[in-house]
Amino acid sequence: MDHPTVIHAVDHAVFMPEKMGKTTLFSSARLLVGLNAFEPGQAHALHAHAGMDKVYHVLAGEGLFLLAGRELPMRAGDLLVAPDGVPHGIRNTSRARLVVLAVLASGTHAG
Amino acid sequence: MDHPTVIHAVDHAVFMPEKMGKTTLFSSARLLVGLNAFEPGQAHALHAHAGMDKVYHVLAGEGLFLLAGRELPMRAGDLLVAPDGVPHGIRNTSRARLVVLAVLASGTHAG
Repeated sequence: MDHPTVIHAVDHAVFMPEKMGKTTLFSSARLLVGLNAFEPGQAHALHAHAGMDKVYHVLAGEGLFLLAGRELPMRAGDLLVAPDGVPHGIRNTSRARLVVLAVLASGTHAG
Repeated sequence: MDHPTVIHAVDHAVFMPEKMGKTTLFSSARLLVGLNAFEPGQAHALHAHAGMDKVYHVLAGEGLFLLAGRELPMRAGDLLVAPDGVPHGIRNTSRARLVVLAVLASGTHAG
């Protein structure tokens, strides 16, 4: 996305047989836009970012958001913000593929 | 969204008869997550942000992204990044309502 272009986001998901697939759609010093793609049963373990807020937006499928010890059901169209320092993750507990848009904003570095 | 909560984003759109409606879903020093809601014919005029990247993601409807002099058709599921300083806007050229998720990332202040 060097030259800004319209993309149909969910079409860019990359699935991996052994673990969650990751795609980067845009990256700058302050912003990272990516896709997390989960086969049934795959998960992104609970983790936290320092100095970074993250927006999750479910594009296809359903599963669970993990957030600071809670498990929150989510489905296509649902959005969740994991603010700076709050542990978060995702688990695909469904029988279908799950695609989540992840947007990370950082004051210093978004990598 | 003081306590992080799952929301079905499109349901939070607020339409205004006289101009584009705006909703803020989350705001911090580095991140602003909001909705832009357009009745048919409404637009968000071309504008630019200094030191801020913006992600547009169409949640419902269709219309045009305006980007640095170009007019790019967009529909539900489409995503566009307007990097720092690149003029951008939206025009609802359709006969139906249009809802766009806007995520702004700033190194300094996301207001």
